[in-house]
Amino acid sequence: MVERHVIDTLRDEFELHGFQEVETRAVEPVSRLAGESEAAKEIYTLRRIHADPEEKGSGLGLHFDLTVPFARYVEEFSGRLVFPFRRYQIQKVWRGERPQEGRFREFYQADIDIVGRDSLPVRVDAEIVIVMAKALARLPVPKVEIRMNNRSIVEGFYRALGIEDIPGVLRMVDKLPKIGSSGVKEMLVEARFDGKVIDGVLALASVSGSEEDIRDQVEQVAGKHGGGEAKDAVQVGIGELVEVLTIVNGALPGVAIADLSVARGLDYYTGSVVETFLKGHKDLGSICSGGRYDSLVAGGGYPGVGMSVGVSRLVARILQAGLAAPTRSTPTAVYVAVAFEEDRSHSESIADRLRIRGIPTEVSPTAAKYGKQIQAADRKGIPFVWFPGEGDDGEIKDIRSGAQAEADADRWTPPREDLKPRLERR
Amino acid sequence: MVERHVIDTLRDEFELHGFQEVETRAVEPVSRLAGESEAAKEIYTLRRIHADPEEKGSGLGLHFDLTVPFARYVEEFSGRLVFPFRRYQIQKVWRGERPQEGRFREFYQADIDIVGRDSLPVRVDAEIVIVMAKALARLPVPKVEIRMNNRSIVEGFYRALGIEDIPGVLRMVDKLPKIGSSGVKEMLVEARFDGKVIDGVLALASVSGSEEDIRDQVEQVAGKHGGGEAKDAVQVGIGELVEVLTIVNGALPGVAIADLSVARGLDYYTGSVVETFLKGHKDLGSICSGGRYDSLVAGGGYPGVGMSVGVSRLVARILQAGLAAPTRSTPTAVYVAVAFEEDRSHSESIADRLRIRGIPTEVSPTAAKYGKQIQAADRKGIPFVWFPGEGDDGEIKDIRSGAQAEADADRWTPPREDLKPRLERR
Repeated sequence: MVERHVIDTLRDEFELHGFQEVETRAVEPVSRLAGESEAAKEIYTLRRIHADPEEKGSGLGLHFDLTVPFARYVEEFSGRLVFPFRRYQIQKVWRGERPQEGRFREFYQADIDIVGRDSLPVRVDAEIVIVMAKALARLPVPKVEIRMNNRSIVEGFYRALGIEDIPGVLRMVDKLPKIGSSGVKEMLVEARFDGKVIDGVLALASVSGSEEDIRDQVEQVAGKHGGGEAKDAVQVGIGELVEVLTIVNGALPGVAIADLSVARGLDYYTGSVVETFLKGHKDLGSICSGGRYDSLVAGGGYPGVGMSVGVSRLVARILQAGLAAPTRSTPTAVYVAVAFEEDRSHSESIADRLRIRGIPTEVSPTAAKYGKQIQAADRKGIPFVWFPGEGDDGEIKDIRSGAQAEADADRWTPPREDLKPRLERR
Repeated sequence: MVERHVIDTLRDEFELHGFQEVETRAVEPVSRLAGESEAAKEIYTLRRIHADPEEKGSGLGLHFDLTVPFARYVEEFSGRLVFPFRRYQIQKVWRGERPQEGRFREFYQADIDIVGRDSLPVRVDAEIVIVMAKALARLPVPKVEIRMNNRSIVEGFYRALGIEDIPGVLRMVDKLPKIGSSGVKEMLVEARFDGKVIDGVLALASVSGSEEDIRDQVEQVAGKHGGGEAKDAVQVGIGELVEVLTIVNGALPGVAIADLSVARGLDYYTGSVVETFLKGHKDLGSICSGGRYDSLVAGGGYPGVGMSVGVSRLVARILQAGLAAPTRSTPTAVYVAVAFEEDRSHSESIADRLRIRGIPTEVSPTAAKYGKQIQAADRKGIPFVWFPGEGDDGEIKDIRSGAQAEADADRWTPPREDLKPRLERR
């Protein structure tokens, strides 16, 4: 029920902002899925159970995220879509990694993306972040902190430092939250980078701040470690980063900050990159991340920006930390008792008259003593029991308070908060 | 959107009847999934892409239905469930068969089941059929015809005829709708059954009727082909079949009939078996089937009854036969125009005031000429365009009728039928 609530809330907020739902098949040709990312190494491939053992396999695999299949979708249906195309997608994905707390091999992701034709203003990067932040604010979790960076700052700076394998260094920096600065330094040393280069990489990654002071900070580090060339190389990225932060914090004051250590392990990002943390739950890692990609769709021409929430990770934390719980575990609001087996159709008719008005109702499976029937309803957490009368609809009892009153099955309605199970923040 | 509508409608009807949602992992140990059914032969097994080629495989597979995983679920969580337990489950399943019209390798099923502890009255079989029939009646499809049988009639009769491999014969009879009476006869001849036995099997399978006349018909065939012994052997099953039909047709007159050819290819059914056809779409085959199982849960003790809708097959037919279509393809009801780029925040604020009242809204991505902005909204099928005024909220235009009027973003509401996309029957 918590998962359903989270998914329905995200769906509602995304649709309020005009995102259309897309669902893609869970299975794609492996050739489509595979790439350089860490996740691509964890693809599950499929094989029919009775396939010839000599057979090479089906060439099919389960998708490991929703971005790669969406790029396939845009390519396949571009002729039928109106751009900029706003889509959301909430589905399970699979990764063959070692399961551990907050990491699953089968889990839900919820993605939003906006994809343009040929161009897409940087402002849209901010729009994606704002929609996601508004959606997350409706969930029963603490406030979020959004940390943003821009690939072109980092790449411009790295290039000015003479680094050739930029994606490789990015992947090392991406491990900062896990292994710390000294761990990343060790990796860079092992990869035989110059001490001066390593100092520069780590100095840039230590920068964070607001839209007001981030330009000065970045320029200072760039100048110190890479001179005028590095300072020039970071200008476009800084401009974009400041613009996006200004729009996001204008709409939702203080929700986003610049953090130059945000790297994202995925190769396809080309501009803004974003990670999102729950206040007081940093140990959970980023719960929602994404960024700008300019050529994810084969052949290019469809720049896009998107973010993805790790729904299952979030739900697991809500459950485990007791952040919210449903008011009851069954949809049923009313349990109609059965006086004696021959009178069952009377109870069924009362139930149908309640259901037709949208009140979830079930009828007792037995005509046991009323005490037993009340007990059965109570065990299921159903708030009301209806006792059919002789010749009339009878009475309804709130089994929490014990209050009981005559009622008409065509008129009686439960209090609004009892109609359906709700999620209560704890 | 059609699929989403179908799934949401089923969900709503199931919850009105007190069914709780359960979701199980898509991946189960193959040992749990595999069985004698046809579908079990079509399991997709999983393997990590970088697994050692000598490795024997993960032992994991994708579920091919929702009944087998549900049995695993009941076994695993029986201590925490309140029986009779009513659950619904709507998920994708996978089968490695040759795709063709109405048959997919990845598709949605929607299941309801009621599982008891130790016993479960036959009346519950009728309840499942009624709930499913009510749910299907809310979908944009023609009326359904529910065809019912009872395994214990058929098995009692087969046993009296001296048949030993009862599941084998059932699987042949299950092919009747596809290969006809002569095809089944050929299979039975090939399996070296006696002519008299074959006549009996085919005679029983040709019987159909209402709760009023089915008893006489079955007794006549049983007596003619198997004598008094056969007549006795079918009594329990006939009693159950008549009881279930009487309750179902009492609630929904004329929706169900007895059809002794309904066999169901699955071994685990022990009593009622059901198939459902769409009137005028017999070529689609059964769109919803199920039945009673007494020992699906390992170790027994949890008799249950359930039905499963082939959601994707139904949705494919709705689309292909044009039975329904959404009123628009985007959730957006209002497209807020942007007068000039510097005024964008004015448009954004109007949009936010609409969204806060539940009206799906997007803001034009460009400040092009109003004609172009209207065109963009129209191409997306958005019914309303909002033009921000100078110093006030401005005006709203229904771009279908051309009607335009001053409006207040804190008060204006679209007509109810335009708020969200709806599905219209054609």
